[in-house]
Amino acid sequence: MNIKPTDEAVLIGLDWGTSSLRAYLFNANGTVLDSRQSSQGIMHLRRTAIEGGFDEAFEAICGDWLDVADIPVVAAGMVGSAQGWLEAPYVPAPVDCAPLTRALETLKTARGTTVFIVPGIIQNGPMPNVMRGEETQIFGAFAAYPELKEARRTLIGLPGTHAKWAFTFDGELQRFLTFMTGEVFAVLRDYTILGRTMHPSSNNLDAAFLRGVDTAIRHSHLGVLATMFSVRTLGLTGEIGPEQQSDYLSGLLIGHELCGLSHLLVEEESTLNDWTVGLIGDERLCRRYQLALSQMGYADVRILQKTTEYGLFQIAWDAGLLAAPSAQD
Amino acid sequence: MNIKPTDEAVLIGLDWGTSSLRAYLFNANGTVLDSRQSSQGIMHLRRTAIEGGFDEAFEAICGDWLDVADIPVVAAGMVGSAQGWLEAPYVPAPVDCAPLTRALETLKTARGTTVFIVPGIIQNGPMPNVMRGEETQIFGAFAAYPELKEARRTLIGLPGTHAKWAFTFDGELQRFLTFMTGEVFAVLRDYTILGRTMHPSSNNLDAAFLRGVDTAIRHSHLGVLATMFSVRTLGLTGEIGPEQQSDYLSGLLIGHELCGLSHLLVEEESTLNDWTVGLIGDERLCRRYQLALSQMGYADVRILQKTTEYGLFQIAWDAGLLAAPSAQD
Repeated sequence: MNIKPTDEAVLIGLDWGTSSLRAYLFNANGTVLDSRQSSQGIMHLRRTAIEGGFDEAFEAICGDWLDVADIPVVAAGMVGSAQGWLEAPYVPAPVDCAPLTRALETLKTARGTTVFIVPGIIQNGPMPNVMRGEETQIFGAFAAYPELKEARRTLIGLPGTHAKWAFTFDGELQRFLTFMTGEVFAVLRDYTILGRTMHPSSNNLDAAFLRGVDTAIRHSHLGVLATMFSVRTLGLTGEIGPEQQSDYLSGLLIGHELCGLSHLLVEEESTLNDWTVGLIGDERLCRRYQLALSQMGYADVRILQKTTEYGLFQIAWDAGLLAAPSAQD
Repeated sequence: MNIKPTDEAVLIGLDWGTSSLRAYLFNANGTVLDSRQSSQGIMHLRRTAIEGGFDEAFEAICGDWLDVADIPVVAAGMVGSAQGWLEAPYVPAPVDCAPLTRALETLKTARGTTVFIVPGIIQNGPMPNVMRGEETQIFGAFAAYPELKEARRTLIGLPGTHAKWAFTFDGELQRFLTFMTGEVFAVLRDYTILGRTMHPSSNNLDAAFLRGVDTAIRHSHLGVLATMFSVRTLGLTGEIGPEQQSDYLSGLLIGHELCGLSHLLVEEESTLNDWTVGLIGDERLCRRYQLALSQMGYADVRILQKTTEYGLFQIAWDAGLLAAPSAQD
């Protein structure tokens, strides 16, 4: 599909991460007129940065859009990291959307287009935390679902390689946590003894997944370093078959992540029930988190859609990059 | 060193694990007359089992001892697993040394020598646990340090790839836990984002290690999936240098392991102070566990030596494999 950009187009948004690049073409109402995807994440450029790798990937994904209309470009994600096109230093939390838009960094591409790069967010302290890209999804969620912004306390989960949980109050991002759940799952499966007896399963085995969640809940005080060995021992005793072990391990890790989150809230005399909870990310993975949360007694958890698109448009809007729609629109 | 075996030798003990093989030649008092080491662990044999790989490794390490004296051989470790020379089925805990000796499996080598294989131990239940090799070290510790057997409650830690903590009462092994601390450390360092900024450190940086232990203690409720990301963020903020990150991560993981152990005891209305605590394993690693335990307020932790040798001899003795020493000895 290659919809021809028209004079309606007012903005290009780029979601430029480590392993992929996505481009969105917006009209003045924030509607996505066209979108594209490329495998040229910042760690997978065809040429190095010095050889013009960023410009090349940029031209390939949206050069023809810019040929038709000279419109601003906003980019979020690892493109703004020290390994990216231009470093956009972290903005400290607590933060809402406005300071983020004031901290946009700009660069000129080879063709002369200005690209506005969204900074990441840092939470300072004895155990610092950082995010880059997720801030755009979180503020996008508030744009797409105003009721989340209006809820006094909203907790937004972003499952994945480095899962984030963001605590927001009245639309301000106050603090967040990172759980390396996805990356730990991958290395345990691919490089440890636990993976040796696993057979891949094409189905999602919810029963095995939920058994893992239950083990985590029952033994959360022991910690995941202890419970993970049960993947092997339940295999040895024949209680979980080779094709169930991957889903069981997934449930175990996600269960420990959610127990950690829950323990933090309990320590602060709160529970997940005091929060409006939303999930952003891969649909299948979000459904698994819903399932696990439901098992823990939190059924009212919503999966949020198209938050990246909404976030890129909102940031550009707040930064005054968009001309106001003309009266006849 | 190749001490010539004399007619004093009464037993050969083999400690035959996944990645290495050790052999001990004992006299009737349990003194080690000679010992040898080979890299032919059960997963690293020069030839496959069907091609006679076990017999070849066996002959290479102790064939000349057997040429001189036809004495019994006792073997412990993964050699008795399903992937080993002969499977010696797990004996269920609780267990003391006697049922273990009754469950020795025997095989005849190519030269006709009988090898007695020590079974591992299984703890059944919703989260089963298994050990193979460590049981010999634990009963060896009781033989070497009778005061540990006499102490009502003894907790024996065996740090390593799959760290074990064994709860013993009056010399009986009641139950145990496995923490995959060592293997998780290795895969996080070698295959995740955390390893990318690490520089190897030739020194043991105790300050960085203890900072990791402290982070684990302070945030144990969040769990290690959350705290491990601080290796990266403390690196990003310049608080821990590239050469400190590996020791910090080690402290973090060992800290979470010890917190898990401590939480289990608290749940049972006990603390580590109610137990006599001993450590078995690599000296450097045991010292780190001592350091971490001391940081948590448990200073009275002892490192136990030569437990494998004592265990192999004790099991052979209890099984009646040794002729009683003659009167003139």
